[in-house]
Amino acid sequence: MRAEILSVGTELLIGQTVNTNATFLAQELASLGVDVHWVVTVGDNFDRLARALSDAAGRADLVVITGGLGPTADDITVEAIARHLGEPLEERPDALAHIEALFKQRNRPMAPSNRKQALFPPTAQLIPNPAGTALGLAAEQAGVRYWAFPGVPSELKRMWAEWAKPTLSALSGETIHSALLKYVGIPEATLAEQVSRYLEGSNPTVAPYAGNYEVHLRVTAKAETVEAAKALMAPVVSELRAIAPFYYGQDDDTLPSVIGRMLLERGEWLGIAESCTGGLLASRITDVAGSSRYMRGSVVCYATDVKTGLVGVEAGMIAREGVVSGAVAEALAERARSVLGAEWGIGVTGYASPGPEVKEPGLVWIAVADGSGVQARAFRYGRSASRETIKLWATQSALDMLRRRLMGLDVRE
Amino acid sequence: MRAEILSVGTELLIGQTVNTNATFLAQELASLGVDVHWVVTVGDNFDRLARALSDAAGRADLVVITGGLGPTADDITVEAIARHLGEPLEERPDALAHIEALFKQRNRPMAPSNRKQALFPPTAQLIPNPAGTALGLAAEQAGVRYWAFPGVPSELKRMWAEWAKPTLSALSGETIHSALLKYVGIPEATLAEQVSRYLEGSNPTVAPYAGNYEVHLRVTAKAETVEAAKALMAPVVSELRAIAPFYYGQDDDTLPSVIGRMLLERGEWLGIAESCTGGLLASRITDVAGSSRYMRGSVVCYATDVKTGLVGVEAGMIAREGVVSGAVAEALAERARSVLGAEWGIGVTGYASPGPEVKEPGLVWIAVADGSGVQARAFRYGRSASRETIKLWATQSALDMLRRRLMGLDVRE
Repeated sequence: MRAEILSVGTELLIGQTVNTNATFLAQELASLGVDVHWVVTVGDNFDRLARALSDAAGRADLVVITGGLGPTADDITVEAIARHLGEPLEERPDALAHIEALFKQRNRPMAPSNRKQALFPPTAQLIPNPAGTALGLAAEQAGVRYWAFPGVPSELKRMWAEWAKPTLSALSGETIHSALLKYVGIPEATLAEQVSRYLEGSNPTVAPYAGNYEVHLRVTAKAETVEAAKALMAPVVSELRAIAPFYYGQDDDTLPSVIGRMLLERGEWLGIAESCTGGLLASRITDVAGSSRYMRGSVVCYATDVKTGLVGVEAGMIAREGVVSGAVAEALAERARSVLGAEWGIGVTGYASPGPEVKEPGLVWIAVADGSGVQARAFRYGRSASRETIKLWATQSALDMLRRRLMGLDVRE
Repeated sequence: MRAEILSVGTELLIGQTVNTNATFLAQELASLGVDVHWVVTVGDNFDRLARALSDAAGRADLVVITGGLGPTADDITVEAIARHLGEPLEERPDALAHIEALFKQRNRPMAPSNRKQALFPPTAQLIPNPAGTALGLAAEQAGVRYWAFPGVPSELKRMWAEWAKPTLSALSGETIHSALLKYVGIPEATLAEQVSRYLEGSNPTVAPYAGNYEVHLRVTAKAETVEAAKALMAPVVSELRAIAPFYYGQDDDTLPSVIGRMLLERGEWLGIAESCTGGLLASRITDVAGSSRYMRGSVVCYATDVKTGLVGVEAGMIAREGVVSGAVAEALAERARSVLGAEWGIGVTGYASPGPEVKEPGLVWIAVADGSGVQARAFRYGRSASRETIKLWATQSALDMLRRRLMGLDVRE
């Protein structure tokens, strides 16, 4: 099967939005063994969308379209698909009911324009959207499938996982199975060199992806059944999972979810005192459902006298060692344990951006404490990294330090 | 002038790389008043690149190509352009000298394959690349310009700034100017209806974009000078900015940066006690450089006894009112002021996902307190919204409540 990705939205043509939807779809289609030869973006323009649909119909079996399903006048995707199929638009009662229910649930009045989102060509199948008013559309004509999804990434991802992925698996005779292995604390090039002999393989294939301060390896096998594909993958997966201590999890695992599982298994609690990460570390940990069973909380001690006051770090030490120092990170981690009543404490202090009193932008000290002691380490993310990047990378480092301490490893430099 | 962006690289078609080059070029071209109607991505495939070049030549005056200028066999961009122009490839002594000099400078032996990067069609002009071996190419035929750049983002950006931007400014007579107006607390459809008379305009144009629980309007005008474009936009921008209390800022403003500016002007401080947002509210506020001048900190009081202990909410009230209630949100906001030593306090308590003790998933109570009192409001984001969505939307609501309180508005329902 060959697919073409068609992104619709003027915001993409003026660079207001990065086309991460196309990247997501490209990854998903590749992992399902579907070739993508073209990715095309057009604006909210009827004629160009029509041309793009007809180009795609001539060179693909599946056209995956995102964007332009909203209620406003410039949302023209459904109308353009209807015209391409030679069909009229009709109001679908089930679609209208979905939209009305969603507004009712959100306690908001439905604008008259939202009625437009209930219009579809008669032969189209609706793709459920549990999280938004924009239903998707699936149609087929002359052997070409057209699937349209909303451009909101969270809605697209959920609809893809719940509808498109199972539908594609049912369509294709061959089963493709893949596993995503996740690593932290190792650069992509180093990991790629270490696993180079697998990168040449054809079944399973192994491909590296670099993300935010972590690296993923996607292992993919094709076979007649899932079991056969899994059997092909098993020896490779098992070797790749043994790359310690960098390998941390698989598929839906995230660094916060893996740590949560480790804490939960021990029945132990986590408390945080974070300065330069500004709450992002706690936020990532609480992105995991059920985190209230091991997360006590965090004190975002942005001002120095919150560090000395509410957290109780000794003011003399801050004056002596400097606010960004190993000693202050250690004190934050230890005080976090005691003021939040937790077995495990993390302390973070660093410089997230340049400033008059900033000695080294990108320097972050992180400490992890438990009943047996505390260990601190300095991370240097570089003077040119952005504020948001430094915050995110520091949370990765802190989570990885906690993970390694939970595994009993020494995390000092 | 009309441009088309053509990205070349199989890594883009399998989702291994996000196409940020296309976003960069789209932004740059838009800011220079060059319309982009198509962004097309193909892999390292000669036939498809040839087709993409001929499609682009039929609908644009300028084709900006990135990627495929490297030394390996799958780098085919220059060859495909030469074929498209009907020209042979010839070795250019100046290009070869550039490549040799770069290897010498880096103290590395030049691989024989790098000689390939000195081959260009005879009529092409070379675009200097101060940072890499891959020189760019500029050619013109039948009124269409072809500019090819390497896919390495840092090289592309530098070559764009140093060569393409000045070249384009010299070519174009017209200037474009645009403003991004930002709104919160109003659905996209409602705002679009309210401003519908502007959405039909042609100079300036007005286009709505929905983001994460906020809506943006882009106003764009074309004229001979920036001043003339601004003058065309001014009356529309002024009317659109008057949509109160939903309009909150323009261009680089974010809800956190606008609030920061308001606090800074007053010389007042903010403290937070947040439960279900898990630190995300504090993190968004501290994404703003300089936020340490108005942000004291936040207590992420995930566990109930952190609410009663460190924050000091009365346990009896939690038992009486329920942990997710207006009374507890108010107490969190007031206690945040006092334990963090701030003029302004925000309290957030809600259900971020379903669970055994969860009465209504998606219900979040938010309160804002200052010296004059406290106001609370319930928000219902819907039972189907994801955990991360509820967290993000709750931060938007909290920031908007604070903004409105800082404007002296009543924020109770």
